[in-house]
Amino acid sequence: MHDPADSDRSVVFSRQELQARLAQVRVAMQEAGIELLVLSDPCNIYYLTGYDAWSFYTPQVLLVGGDGDPVWFGRQMDTTGAALTTWLPDGHIVGYPDHLVQNPPEHPFTMLAEQIRARGGARARIGVEKANYYLGVQAFEVLSAGLPDATWADASLLVNWVRFIKSPAEIALLREAGHLLSLSMAAGVAALRPGVHEREAVARIYASQIAGTASFGGLYTSSPAFFMSGERTATPHLPWRDRVLAAGTPVNLELMGNRLRYQVTQGRSVYLGKPPAPLRQLEHILLEAIDEVLAFIRPGVRCGEVAGLLRRVLARHGIDKHSRCGYSQGIAYPPTGGEMTASFREGDETVLQAGAVMHFLPALWQDQHSIMISEPVVVTASGCECLCTTPRQLFVRD
Amino acid sequence: MHDPADSDRSVVFSRQELQARLAQVRVAMQEAGIELLVLSDPCNIYYLTGYDAWSFYTPQVLLVGGDGDPVWFGRQMDTTGAALTTWLPDGHIVGYPDHLVQNPPEHPFTMLAEQIRARGGARARIGVEKANYYLGVQAFEVLSAGLPDATWADASLLVNWVRFIKSPAEIALLREAGHLLSLSMAAGVAALRPGVHEREAVARIYASQIAGTASFGGLYTSSPAFFMSGERTATPHLPWRDRVLAAGTPVNLELMGNRLRYQVTQGRSVYLGKPPAPLRQLEHILLEAIDEVLAFIRPGVRCGEVAGLLRRVLARHGIDKHSRCGYSQGIAYPPTGGEMTASFREGDETVLQAGAVMHFLPALWQDQHSIMISEPVVVTASGCECLCTTPRQLFVRD
Repeated sequence: MHDPADSDRSVVFSRQELQARLAQVRVAMQEAGIELLVLSDPCNIYYLTGYDAWSFYTPQVLLVGGDGDPVWFGRQMDTTGAALTTWLPDGHIVGYPDHLVQNPPEHPFTMLAEQIRARGGARARIGVEKANYYLGVQAFEVLSAGLPDATWADASLLVNWVRFIKSPAEIALLREAGHLLSLSMAAGVAALRPGVHEREAVARIYASQIAGTASFGGLYTSSPAFFMSGERTATPHLPWRDRVLAAGTPVNLELMGNRLRYQVTQGRSVYLGKPPAPLRQLEHILLEAIDEVLAFIRPGVRCGEVAGLLRRVLARHGIDKHSRCGYSQGIAYPPTGGEMTASFREGDETVLQAGAVMHFLPALWQDQHSIMISEPVVVTASGCECLCTTPRQLFVRD
Repeated sequence: MHDPADSDRSVVFSRQELQARLAQVRVAMQEAGIELLVLSDPCNIYYLTGYDAWSFYTPQVLLVGGDGDPVWFGRQMDTTGAALTTWLPDGHIVGYPDHLVQNPPEHPFTMLAEQIRARGGARARIGVEKANYYLGVQAFEVLSAGLPDATWADASLLVNWVRFIKSPAEIALLREAGHLLSLSMAAGVAALRPGVHEREAVARIYASQIAGTASFGGLYTSSPAFFMSGERTATPHLPWRDRVLAAGTPVNLELMGNRLRYQVTQGRSVYLGKPPAPLRQLEHILLEAIDEVLAFIRPGVRCGEVAGLLRRVLARHGIDKHSRCGYSQGIAYPPTGGEMTASFREGDETVLQAGAVMHFLPALWQDQHSIMISEPVVVTASGCECLCTTPRQLFVRD
């Protein structure tokens, strides 16, 4: 078993920082009338413990009660990883045997229900994350059948909302993530030119994000590099293709930098050859809008107001845009780089405060052309600051 | 909107291949008494349509009825990607508006329920994938509330089991994935030596997998490169660290190759410097066991028998191993590279047939040492064939 004095123990955050987070979560639990929180979201488990392993593809939770250390419950083979990457004491890391893995009708949550009963939770009001990817329908059915006297609350986003305002230690990591992302975007843009295979540029993007700087590198990102070329620039979320890029091809890149699971995202458009005039026109409109919006973002502003300002600036140029143009970022595991809380969307009443981190993504699709120029920003005491240093422009490569 | 004659349309499989898959799924639906299948697993959606985008982080399904083309239901901004990567005809790609995205209490499945009612499914027996990551508890509650007269069946793994035996076109892609993986593993091993940063080796691994060969490259893998060094070799599923590798350090690598979403996995141990004698001894035992097991795998053999043979060979050397030592592979999206169907585990009665693809992973953890030497294999008419060409050994680098 793991020795706590082991030099290989690698916990990113101090006990003090993690205790402060836990205290905030407990305030939110009390407000929601939740006695026991069963967390499935790996971002939330990482936030409260530092546990970082790719083990969430089998059932795994963190139990947070009203006091004491949380309890990690997961696959037996991952308990050593839990000991190595957290401060959790003995007895707070519980493994289930391998015959319960992907072996229906057996399920690890039969044992989880026993654990909760043994810890006095049989009649508790229990909060579960019903909107999270890693609590399945089947898993919840097994758990609730095993705890027939418990009452259930949907605690989706309870911890996510606590994560909304970042501590100085978190902002330091997000700045490093922005630096990795700037390097990776620069490498991708530099690799793009007519005659190059898409995959060659993408290989540079990945290698650069991971290799990073002389003092730190990147971890895997929550999403792949999105690389849309040609007619594919009409849509987001697609991967690269086995294809040589020709002159006259537009490319939209949406990339991420990840520093110890803290992640930011940025989009840029690149044109191979001389850009068509309407694309240049879109660039000018978008840059004007970005300038106005970034000058507007500060503590006290509501997220919906940011989206409204963008809509009004674009409307001056005859462009109608109503869709969401940003979202909160922080810790990220697949499948998403968003925190699923605040959005830059009209009607979103969230008030920005110093320490919020938002990906402002005002992409435009118009008249067969599209342009993507986005900025991840941290809200400061008096305004906001971009976390990347990528030049804000349509890149032209020939 | 998308023109079907568009040269940018990129559908990996022929209509005929996809029709044959759909016919097999409909046989399984009939056996299970399911009239309408609501698929959430992106692997299953890709299998039946070719739809390939990273859009499953918002609610998205494929509806498969008793006849006709399936219906893709997802976010409006992803409908263009659905048109570009599938053969689905107009009217079979349905988008929901962006205000339904991550904006509780609104949910896209209210609209999905309407769609199902409009298509005559209000009283249908509907199969959903209750064990899949991308059908959440909340989503299922919204869907079932919107269809109060439907009856529900758990159709988890119904399509996964159809996927178990691969077509020649699929095996061709898995061979290419194996080739990409062999390149990537070779690049990783070559980059490892005392004095190298872990991240430098990992950057090579990613770049090599993606850049691939002169004629094809790799897509993103379902899981990151697993890179465990030092005491971390005692556990799986961990990422690399910001750390320079010293002589006397063991490293376990578990890597993937992904060709158009078809993916295989391989593990190898590397030792920097002169390996300790007990580790060499483990290597010899494991290689003997792998030889015996690979010679045994052929059509007609049950998966449980493979695990039993491994256990008996290892027991000859005083090693007790009961855990799962393999799983079925094929199409992969995060968070897992396994198909969640057949396992090499005692008691698994699945009979191997030609066209099954299994990752045989007999990793050993013993006396402070661990060794990982694994092989993805395709079952042939008379035996099995390794999909990678990586030398089968403990790699020594100094």
